[in-house]
Formats: sequence, C-alpha cells, structure tokens
Amino acid sequence: MRRYRERGVAGGVGMAKIVVDVMLKPEIRDPQGEAIAAACHRLGFAGVRSVRQGKRFEVEFDGETDPEAKAAELAEDLLANPVIEEFSIRRG
Amino acid sequence: MRRYRERGVAGGVGMAKIVVDVMLKPEIRDPQGEAIAAACHRLGFAGVRSVRQGKRFEVEFDGETDPEAKAAELAEDLLANPVIEEFSIRRG
Repeated sequence: MRRYRERGVAGGVGMAKIVVDVMLKPEIRDPQGEAIAAACHRLGFAGVRSVRQGKRFEVEFDGETDPEAKAAELAEDLLANPVIEEFSIRRG
Repeated sequence: MRRYRERGVAGGVGMAKIVVDVMLKPEIRDPQGEAIAAACHRLGFAGVRSVRQGKRFEVEFDGETDPEAKAAELAEDLLANPVIEEFSIRRG
C-alpha cells in the first residue's frame, strides 16, 4: 500500500511517468533552431539570441522496479542517436 | 554587477535561458508516440505502457526584463499550435 501512495501516480498499481529530453549535442549545428530564431526576429522578438529544438518524450511504465534505469536504456536504444544527441531522464 | 551574478548565466549581460516544452493536448491522439510504444514492445521493453512525443525548445534571451513572459508570447505565436498543443515555460 505504502509503496503505491509514495509513487503518487494515478491510473494503476506501480505506474510511473518518466520524461526523456533529447537534444542535439552542443557542438552539433541545429539548422531547425536557427530557422526558428530567424523567424523570431522577423516576428519582432528582437531579444531572442538563439533557439535549439529537441524532443521530449513522456513514457509511462507499468510494474517496473527501476523505471528511470529502464528509460535510460530505452533512450540509448531507441529515442536518441548517441552520435549526435544527448538525453536526460527525470520523473514526470 | 550583482544582477549578472544572480542570473548565473555565462555568455553576456542579461542573458537568460528559457525552456519551452510543447506537447499535444491529452485528448489529441499521438500516432508518433503510439508507433514508438509499439517499437518499444518489439524491442523487449514490455513495461512501457504509453509514449507521447513532444517538442522541447531552449531559447536564449538577451536583455529581456521578463524572459518568461516573452517566451510565453513566443510559444503562443510561433512554437505551439494552440488548437492541438499545450506548452509550459521554465528557466533552463
């Protein structure tokens, strides 16, 4: 009982929501982000200095004892390209 | 002097990094996320119950007095489609 209450996630027993953020590595150029920054300037947002665009995944796990570790494995295998991207994991 | 130290962002005077997360509204179907969830199962990640994919923007502002408010304006105008998406703003 105690365990589920600690998790505090609605929807079932042993559920956990993990957020995986995937961004291009800082040394990799981001033409999409550059295009958005240019559009910002055209729209009058003169204070925008740079934009970088990445991906955000919300993954719901059911019955995993260590969902963060599983999410890291998943990010390495499927969600991120480790050659050009880096990722971070946190509870959602 | 004090102000720049409080901001704690390297690279210039009055710089601020804001993260804008854009996700499909919960009631909108996410076929991309569903395809990823199916791929997870094929790869042996049986504990994955659902995946939703969104976008993450890292926006650097220079010389804005209220960069969070500016980022919210930018998200409404350019980064998110308010018909099907919702966004959240935070310091990066």
